[in-house]
Amino acid sequence: MATNSVEFRRANAVNLAAIVALLADDPLGGERESPGGALDPGYRDAFAAIERDPNQLLAVAERDGRVIGVLQLSFIPGLTRRGMWRGQIEGVRVASSERRGGIGRAMLEWAITECRDRGCGLVQLTSDKRRVGAHRFYAALGFAATHEGYKLALRS
Amino acid sequence: MATNSVEFRRANAVNLAAIVALLADDPLGGERESPGGALDPGYRDAFAAIERDPNQLLAVAERDGRVIGVLQLSFIPGLTRRGMWRGQIEGVRVASSERRGGIGRAMLEWAITECRDRGCGLVQLTSDKRRVGAHRFYAALGFAATHEGYKLALRS
Repeated sequence: MATNSVEFRRANAVNLAAIVALLADDPLGGERESPGGALDPGYRDAFAAIERDPNQLLAVAERDGRVIGVLQLSFIPGLTRRGMWRGQIEGVRVASSERRGGIGRAMLEWAITECRDRGCGLVQLTSDKRRVGAHRFYAALGFAATHEGYKLALRS
Repeated sequence: MATNSVEFRRANAVNLAAIVALLADDPLGGERESPGGALDPGYRDAFAAIERDPNQLLAVAERDGRVIGVLQLSFIPGLTRRGMWRGQIEGVRVASSERRGGIGRAMLEWAITECRDRGCGLVQLTSDKRRVGAHRFYAALGFAATHEGYKLALRS
């Protein structure tokens, strides 16, 4: 299976342009990201902030030296549920050329194991209601859509 | 208006038992929390983890020396949307005796301002689909329910 040769690991700074290209290679992300050319300095600042924070883990899937997937994990301490830690997943993307090959599933299973290893009692994520295919994907992984996901933009 | 005399501020350790009592004073939280008596050590560990993390802010609403509301803010750096920070709100509770008095709205508005002051471009939260009253509350504050909120329990 193709996923046998895929490695999941913490991203490093040389992966940043490839990650931004992945974020833009998406029907919704394409409107919002700024890949190519000189990288928007916002991406470098955000990468540095993620690196500084021990409760953030930006991870990539790599095969044959090429970044083919990305996601971000946030480990969040909280009082609710008797002081349970949560693992939160954001920014899941798989290269369009690699979709339907099991990479997404393997990457999410890896991320769930990371959350378990960090002592989290729950993994959570939100998915845009327009991403109908993604909803089947998360349900197949055992996630339940028990919550409404609210967003409030502070700037456009 | 009653909210004039309410102060919103970072929680400190002496507020912990009052906060846990608030988390339990809720139809859903009542099943999951363990208030009263000797405080479950999980709450103390979680409080310490929140205090250690500069990107977490546990806040209380206080009036006349009494904690009447609580929420947790997490400031999350991320690459998506050109490296935008997100403010995330969890564990919003208002004392049952104080509901419908505007405390919740004032507390959320305070939290949104904190997110703006920290440079966040977006505020997000999830709300259990059973909390229908809460959904009207968040919509009135300008939040849009654009996302499905998925949860995966790693232990019961």
